[in-house]
Amino acid sequence: MTLGRADLEALDATDPLASFRDEFALPEGVLYLDGNSLGALPRATPARLARLVEEEWGRDLIRSWNTAGWIDLPRRVGEAIAPVVGAAPGQVIAADSTSVNLFKLAAAAVGMRPGRRVILSEPGNFPTDLYVLQGLAELLGDRVELVLAERHELADALDGDVALLLLTHVHYKTGRVHDLPGLTAAAHAAGALTLWDLSHSAGALEVELDAAGADFAVGCGYKYLNGGPGAPAWLYVAQRHQGQVRQPLAGWMGHAAPFAFEDRFRPADGMARQLCGTPGILGMAALEEGVRIVARADRARLREKSRRLGDLFLTLVAEQCGPDSFALACPADGAERGSQVSLSHPEGYAIVQALIARGVIGDFRAPDILRFGFAPLYLRYTDIWDAVAHLAAVMRDGDWQADRFRQRAAVT
Amino acid sequence: MTLGRADLEALDATDPLASFRDEFALPEGVLYLDGNSLGALPRATPARLARLVEEEWGRDLIRSWNTAGWIDLPRRVGEAIAPVVGAAPGQVIAADSTSVNLFKLAAAAVGMRPGRRVILSEPGNFPTDLYVLQGLAELLGDRVELVLAERHELADALDGDVALLLLTHVHYKTGRVHDLPGLTAAAHAAGALTLWDLSHSAGALEVELDAAGADFAVGCGYKYLNGGPGAPAWLYVAQRHQGQVRQPLAGWMGHAAPFAFEDRFRPADGMARQLCGTPGILGMAALEEGVRIVARADRARLREKSRRLGDLFLTLVAEQCGPDSFALACPADGAERGSQVSLSHPEGYAIVQALIARGVIGDFRAPDILRFGFAPLYLRYTDIWDAVAHLAAVMRDGDWQADRFRQRAAVT
Repeated sequence: MTLGRADLEALDATDPLASFRDEFALPEGVLYLDGNSLGALPRATPARLARLVEEEWGRDLIRSWNTAGWIDLPRRVGEAIAPVVGAAPGQVIAADSTSVNLFKLAAAAVGMRPGRRVILSEPGNFPTDLYVLQGLAELLGDRVELVLAERHELADALDGDVALLLLTHVHYKTGRVHDLPGLTAAAHAAGALTLWDLSHSAGALEVELDAAGADFAVGCGYKYLNGGPGAPAWLYVAQRHQGQVRQPLAGWMGHAAPFAFEDRFRPADGMARQLCGTPGILGMAALEEGVRIVARADRARLREKSRRLGDLFLTLVAEQCGPDSFALACPADGAERGSQVSLSHPEGYAIVQALIARGVIGDFRAPDILRFGFAPLYLRYTDIWDAVAHLAAVMRDGDWQADRFRQRAAVT
Repeated sequence: MTLGRADLEALDATDPLASFRDEFALPEGVLYLDGNSLGALPRATPARLARLVEEEWGRDLIRSWNTAGWIDLPRRVGEAIAPVVGAAPGQVIAADSTSVNLFKLAAAAVGMRPGRRVILSEPGNFPTDLYVLQGLAELLGDRVELVLAERHELADALDGDVALLLLTHVHYKTGRVHDLPGLTAAAHAAGALTLWDLSHSAGALEVELDAAGADFAVGCGYKYLNGGPGAPAWLYVAQRHQGQVRQPLAGWMGHAAPFAFEDRFRPADGMARQLCGTPGILGMAALEEGVRIVARADRARLREKSRRLGDLFLTLVAEQCGPDSFALACPADGAERGSQVSLSHPEGYAIVQALIARGVIGDFRAPDILRFGFAPLYLRYTDIWDAVAHLAAVMRDGDWQADRFRQRAAVT
């Protein structure tokens, strides 16, 4: 028995997260399956930014560092993110970019494991994770070596030379989920520390950093946290490590007394030492609005819905496009998959462009991956039906064969 | 013969920069002498941000990386800043914070001078400059040593062990200006590279990086560039060094082909390799609006006006408060001073608070400095008259002795 649109309407009608959609300003005529690249705009954000710009900056000027609480935003936003990733208070702060935060924590971890020189990751990890480690290894010369092991060989590669295991929890391309608690325990058994990149997890998956005994984590603010383009990122340091962590980007905001203007760096207590320069207040305020929404949603429900959206998408693609239309480039089992599905097709680029022309926004990842993300806060089950109907039409009618869809843009 | 307010009205009437004031949204009843901490709000910025948020982000979503040119903002903003600091195109890019950019370039410079381990700076330099160097030195161990020499001893300290001379062009507290061309030449004669922090210079002083043969520079976006609170910073790398500079924060935006998603880092050509993570688009757009205004102003006129504003302020303080009311904590000679004056007084903190209560915004720097900055784009000569009149009244009436002004806030 195949599914009908009415089945998905029924799911929407009983969706306990349905009301969250009203908190986002989604454009008419668009089916947005790319919230894993750039989250949608919260309705509250434009007014928050207008107030920040016109009143706090324009009218109150420098005083707003105190009176509008700008100076406290990195901590406040971090505390709002903490429960979203299963962290007790005092362990998360918003700062810089994911890349910069990876550098801070990878360097700190190496310092905490003298005599061990390996940072272990996997090939095909999100590029910036690997690049930042290469930059650190180049800077530190013989003191650090980046070793990449395939997923199934990671556990074996955790030997006595490994200082840090750095992985992205949900793979950006395949959506495959790592066993965060299991690999964390394995790393600890080998005497290594762990650094989890949760960019594709926070706000869509259930992550329990404290329960897993995680050491460090980072994540970006512009995907499921809806913080806007290039939003500040965040980082997590387990309470037990906070006294020992010396991250090398020792800017003035990480000082114990930034406004004492001392010559000598003294790291702040707790998470504040993870700060570096002056925080970008526009980005922090927008991120706070996005996080506020996510933090009110039940994580188990977010995860359950995200999985069902993905399962339904795959079922409907098989039913409506035919079982051989695409190769599966993600796990078929929703439990092993993040909040996205990936299909492969030699003409993937052109197909994604043809879908975009129809208002179905997914994205393409070289060489041949069509990636569709499911933001459980604002997607409806019927959106999945409608998106797959467009995909089936594109394949049936051959839309994608038009020249205008096959020409690659500089940035995709 | 003492000055009268009419003398300053006459200066305003013939000020060739006077029309720029209309491009800023300045609050009623405020005399803002703190544009060197946070520049005022350009009138064009709120609409630009509203459009960015509601249309580019909210309506066009992920597509705006291409269609709205987000991906190009760091380069575009950098190119707009370049002429403001006397740089030919292709040498400036906007990115991260000043602190993060200092780390990138200091690390790169050390790599370019193998065998030399000293980074030379001065005590009392802006804290983040010193802290970042301490963080780098701690990370690199024996390979780097931070040496501080007093201003008059810097030339002598430039020996064969110095890899990099890092100085802030205009001292944040005293306003004293370093001889940028002279010290650059002296460093080069000793085989060292130079890194100039132009946070208090760009947009107010004439800086000629290319003409001085400078190697590297950084600066912040939220002072005289009017980019808003925590605006992105910028960095300059002289064309001749661009091929050799390997900065360690090797994020994906610095890759030669970020969207090829390769495992191996290959630095981009030119300035793009100075990028790290995904740029904060809200901050970049606001900075672009601020820079657009500054870039249209003649640098020589900005510098001339900034000097006159400072000279007049000091003259009027002597005339109206009495010659012994304050000790001078900045050079008396405008040619040796940046776009600010500093006075010292044991009750400096309370006096600054009493001024703020009257709408005169300056700031206090521990332990006893009253600092007043002069943003030549939007300050009027009569503002100087009025501000000093308030200062004289505060001193005469003893406003500052009120308890509420003497209690220090956590952040000042």
